[in-house]
Amino acid sequence: MSKKVLIVGGVAGGASAAARLRRLDEKAHIVMFERDEYISFANCGLPYYIGGAIKDRSKLLVQTPEAMHQRFKLDIRTKSEVMSIDPESKTVRVNSEARGEYDESYDYLILSPGAKPIRPNLPGMNSSKIYTLRNIADTDRIKKRVAETNTRSAIVVGGGFIGVEMAENLKDAGLDVSLIQSSSQLLAPFDREMSHALAQELEQHGVNLLFSESVQSFKEIGQQIQVELASGAALVGDIVIWAVGVAPDTAFLAGSGLQITASGHIIVNEKLETNLEGVFAVGDAIEVVDYINGSKTAIPLAGPANKQGRIAADNVCGLGSSYKGSQGTSIIKVFGLTGAVTGHNEKSLTRLGISYHVTYVHPSSHASYYPGAIPLTIKLLFNDEGAILGAQAVGADGVDKRIDTIATVMRLRGTVYDLTELELAYAPPYSSAKDPVNMAGYTAENILTGKTKVFVPEDLKSFEPEKATLVDVRSELEHSNGHIAGSKLIPVDELRDRLDELDSNKEIWVYCQVGLRGYTASRILQQHGFKVRNLAGGYKTYKMATYTPSNNRQASSRDLSPGNSLCN
Amino acid sequence: MSKKVLIVGGVAGGASAAARLRRLDEKAHIVMFERDEYISFANCGLPYYIGGAIKDRSKLLVQTPEAMHQRFKLDIRTKSEVMSIDPESKTVRVNSEARGEYDESYDYLILSPGAKPIRPNLPGMNSSKIYTLRNIADTDRIKKRVAETNTRSAIVVGGGFIGVEMAENLKDAGLDVSLIQSSSQLLAPFDREMSHALAQELEQHGVNLLFSESVQSFKEIGQQIQVELASGAALVGDIVIWAVGVAPDTAFLAGSGLQITASGHIIVNEKLETNLEGVFAVGDAIEVVDYINGSKTAIPLAGPANKQGRIAADNVCGLGSSYKGSQGTSIIKVFGLTGAVTGHNEKSLTRLGISYHVTYVHPSSHASYYPGAIPLTIKLLFNDEGAILGAQAVGADGVDKRIDTIATVMRLRGTVYDLTELELAYAPPYSSAKDPVNMAGYTAENILTGKTKVFVPEDLKSFEPEKATLVDVRSELEHSNGHIAGSKLIPVDELRDRLDELDSNKEIWVYCQVGLRGYTASRILQQHGFKVRNLAGGYKTYKMATYTPSNNRQASSRDLSPGNSLCN
Repeated sequence: MSKKVLIVGGVAGGASAAARLRRLDEKAHIVMFERDEYISFANCGLPYYIGGAIKDRSKLLVQTPEAMHQRFKLDIRTKSEVMSIDPESKTVRVNSEARGEYDESYDYLILSPGAKPIRPNLPGMNSSKIYTLRNIADTDRIKKRVAETNTRSAIVVGGGFIGVEMAENLKDAGLDVSLIQSSSQLLAPFDREMSHALAQELEQHGVNLLFSESVQSFKEIGQQIQVELASGAALVGDIVIWAVGVAPDTAFLAGSGLQITASGHIIVNEKLETNLEGVFAVGDAIEVVDYINGSKTAIPLAGPANKQGRIAADNVCGLGSSYKGSQGTSIIKVFGLTGAVTGHNEKSLTRLGISYHVTYVHPSSHASYYPGAIPLTIKLLFNDEGAILGAQAVGADGVDKRIDTIATVMRLRGTVYDLTELELAYAPPYSSAKDPVNMAGYTAENILTGKTKVFVPEDLKSFEPEKATLVDVRSELEHSNGHIAGSKLIPVDELRDRLDELDSNKEIWVYCQVGLRGYTASRILQQHGFKVRNLAGGYKTYKMATYTPSNNRQASSRDLSPGNSLCN
Repeated sequence: MSKKVLIVGGVAGGASAAARLRRLDEKAHIVMFERDEYISFANCGLPYYIGGAIKDRSKLLVQTPEAMHQRFKLDIRTKSEVMSIDPESKTVRVNSEARGEYDESYDYLILSPGAKPIRPNLPGMNSSKIYTLRNIADTDRIKKRVAETNTRSAIVVGGGFIGVEMAENLKDAGLDVSLIQSSSQLLAPFDREMSHALAQELEQHGVNLLFSESVQSFKEIGQQIQVELASGAALVGDIVIWAVGVAPDTAFLAGSGLQITASGHIIVNEKLETNLEGVFAVGDAIEVVDYINGSKTAIPLAGPANKQGRIAADNVCGLGSSYKGSQGTSIIKVFGLTGAVTGHNEKSLTRLGISYHVTYVHPSSHASYYPGAIPLTIKLLFNDEGAILGAQAVGADGVDKRIDTIATVMRLRGTVYDLTELELAYAPPYSSAKDPVNMAGYTAENILTGKTKVFVPEDLKSFEPEKATLVDVRSELEHSNGHIAGSKLIPVDELRDRLDELDSNKEIWVYCQVGLRGYTASRILQQHGFKVRNLAGGYKTYKMATYTPSNNRQASSRDLSPGNSLCN
C-alpha cells in the first residue's frame, strides 16, 4: 500500500523534502500544506527585490504550486494552516481558506514550519509604519511603501543578517537609512573587529549606525514614526524595519506531546525524527548538533534546511540518511564587501569555556601583480591540537572561496596543518602560489610549533611599559601615517644592526602592517635571545579592532542625514 | 658552527626555501645562485605582461636581490650558473659572469633548477622569429617584437597552459593568432569535452584553432615565417611562439651520482632529500608522488614548488616536514571563462587501468534569481567506494571556488558523500542553498546507491535502436532548437501519462538539458518497471563533447583571418 506523507511548510526544507520524496517513491500520496499563498519562494532574495537588485518579482517565485504539481504529482494546499497535530490518531488539524477546518491523516509527517520574526510588546509596536520581513506578503508591503514618494527614510532595528541586508537594500532604493543595534557590534556570528570592517562599509555608503542603543518605544508623529531609545535619544523616520531576530514558529505544536526545547525548537535525532512515531522535523524550527563541539544549538540557515529536507525524505523511505550537525557557515554582502564565517567565534568559545589560539592574515585576493588584487582578512581560531574551531573573513573579493575551503577542512575534521598542505587552484587572476588559506595555516602552525608568540589588540590594554617594549618594524613613512601610541620605530631591515637599542630584560612586542614583517622581526629577535611577541595581523587588525561608528564617537554632535533627525 | 646552505635557482621553490631558512636560522650562511639576472620573478605573470593586463614591468619583479638581501641577509649571486655538483667534496662548480668559474662548498644543497621549454631539432627551428617563454629575458624579447608595427600575426604551437595563455594574451595585444595543437583537444589536464568549452571561447574571441596537426618544419619567407604541418598544410605569420611543453632542467647534474629518472626528474623522498647526503630538491625538476593513487609522477606547478621550498628548508633545519604529494590542481583563464582541474581525468584513469564513474552538473554560479548568475559545468570522477579521483570545472564565474572545495575534500581523503554534506557559505550573490559542489555530490551518490544509471555522450556510439529507445524529456521548444538524432520527444511532465508509448522490452535512454529532469524521468520510469539510463549532464554535455574547431570542420574551406594565411 502506498504511504501518505504530510508536509507542513512549503518553503526550503519542506519543498526539498517533497521533491526528494517523489523521486524516491512514485506512488506515495504527498500533501504539502503552506499557510501562505506561495511555496518554495526565494526567501534569501527578498531584501534584494526590495532594494531593486532583483527587478522581476516573479523571479522570487522559484516554484509555483502548479509547476511543482505537474512535475512531482504533489497535493499542494496553499492558504492552509496546520493548527495542531494529534499523534494518537495520526492526524493534523488544518484551517484552509478554501475548505475551512478539517483533519487530515498521515503515515508520516514532516514538519518544516520555519522561524518567525521576534516582535516584543513595546509601546507603539503595533504602528503600521513598523514592518517585519518573512514572506512574499511582507515583501510586497515594504516594496510598495518604499516606492511611495513620501517614504524618504527608514530606521532598521537590529544588526543581524536581515537587518544589515535591509539597511543596504533600502539605501540602494534611495532612502536615508539608520541602523540601531543593541550590542556594540553588528552581525553576532563575527567577532567585533571583523564585523567592524563591515560596519565601516555601511557608514561609508551613508548608513547611519548607532551601536549600544536599545529601542524602548515608538510614537507616530504626523506621517512619521519616532523611535525612542533607552539612552533618551530618539530617531525619526518614515518607516521602521524591525529585524531583531527570529524564533521557531512552533506554537501550534503545544500540547501535541512533541518534545520541544525551552526556546521552542523541535528536538530531533540524527535521522531528523522527533519523539513521535513517523514525525520528522527540519529547518529553522529544529534543534541541531553543533558540528564543531557536539553540543546542541539552533542555527536558522537555508543551506542546512534544504539538506535536512532531503534527509527527512530519505528516512521516510527507510534509506537511513543522517544529519550530522550544523557549523553555521554563513555569508553576507555589504555593499562592496563580503563577510563570511564558519564555526565558532571568540565570543562563543569564551562562553563555552573552550580555549583557543587566534591568527589573522591580510593577503591579496590573488597575485598582487595581476590587476584587481585586493587584500582580504582571514581570522582563524584553533586549539592546541590544531583543530580548527572557527574562521571569519572580510574583503572585497575571494572571501566566499576561502571560507568555503576552511569550512570544508572543518567538515572533514582537518587541522591547521592540513591548511598548509591544501593544493588549491593557482593562476595569477585567482590566487597566489601560496593561497591565503595556506598562509593562514602557516601562521597558525608557526604559533603551535613555538616559532612565534603573538598578541592581539585586546592585549594592549594590559601592556606594561616597564615590562615590555612596543616596536613598530614598518617603514618610517608607514609609522608617520599612524601607529600604536608608545611604540618605538625600528624598520625590520635595520633591526639586526640596532639590537642594542632594545632592553633585553623586557619582552619585545613587535608589530608591522599585516603581521609578516613582524614575524620576521620576531624570528630575528628570538634568535638573538629576546623574548618576543608579534601582533597577529599587525596594525591593520589593530585599526579594525579600535573602530567605533561615528555616531557613537560623537555622541554630543551626532551628524545624521536630513531624513533621520536625531533628537537628544 | 653555522651551517652553509647553497640554493640552486632563485625563483619559486628556491626563493621560498631561502626566506624560510633565514627565519628558522638567523646564523646560517645562505647562498642563492641564479643563472639569470632576476630572482623570484612572477613567472606565472609573464604572458599577462606581454598581453598588457599587467602594465608595469617592475611588477613582475616580486623581489629584487637587494631587497631580499636586506630583509633576509642572503648571499645572492645572479648571472651565476651552477655547472655541476660534486657530492664527494660537497662542492658545486659555478660559472659566474662577474667572477668566472669557481667552486663553492656546502653543508646542505637545495636544488631548484626548474624546467625549460622543450625545443626539438626541427628544420628551421633556429629562426629568430621563433620564441619560447621561460624568463624575464624571453618576455622582454617577445614584448618588444609584439610592439613593433610590422608584427601583426602570431602562430602559437602547443595548446597547453602556456600556449593557451599566450594565445589569449597575443590576441589581447592586437595580433591575429593561430594555435596549432597536435592532439584533438587543448589543455591535456582536462578531458576533451571540458577542454572544448575553453576552445570555443578562444574561437569566439577570434583565435584560429587547428587540432590534430603537427609541425614538421619552419621556413622564413621574407619578413614572415611559414609553419609547415604534417598534413601538408602550412600557416604563415610574423612570429611563432613555441610552447609544446617543458622538461626538467637537470642536465648539469649528469655524472654527479644524483638519482634521476629517465625523463630527467630528480628522485626525492618525502622529506625532499635526494640520494646524496645533504642534497634536497624542489619544484618543477623533481619527481613527486601522485597524491591520488600513490604512484610516481611529475607535475610542474608553482603552488607545489613554493610549498616544497619551505619543506626543504624545514628539513635542512631538522624539523622533519614532509611533502605528501601533488594532485595537479590547476586553473586557467581563457578570456571570459575559467577552467580548473584537480586530480585525474578520464584519460589518465584509463591509462592507469583505474575504473571510475562520472557525473556532470551544470548549476548556476549563484542563486539563479540574483543578477549575474551564470551556469558552470562540474565534472566529477569517483570510484565504487565514493573516493573522488578527479574533478574539472568550466564557467564564467565561481569555477575556482568549486574546484578548490573539491580539491580540499580530495586532500583530506573525503568522498562524494562528504560533498553532499559540506556546509558552504550561502547567500544569493554567492551560491545556492545547495551549492554546485553539493549537487555534484548528490548526483554521484544517486549513481552509487543505484537510484539512477547514467550514460555519457561517448556511449551513444554503441547505441542500438533495436535494443533501446532514446527519449528527450525536455520541452517541445527545446527539442526543436536542437536534439540528439533519433530521439523521441516526451516532456517529463507528460511522461506519467504517456508510458504506453514506450516499449518496455527496450532500455530507455533519457536526456534533458542538464541532467536534472532526465533524473526525475529516470526515477518515474524505473518505478514503472522500465530499465532506464539518463544522460549525465544532459544535452549540454552532449554539445560540449561533439564540438570541433571550425578549421577542422571545414578542412576544405578554411577561413583564417588575414594575417594567418593557410596554404593547402
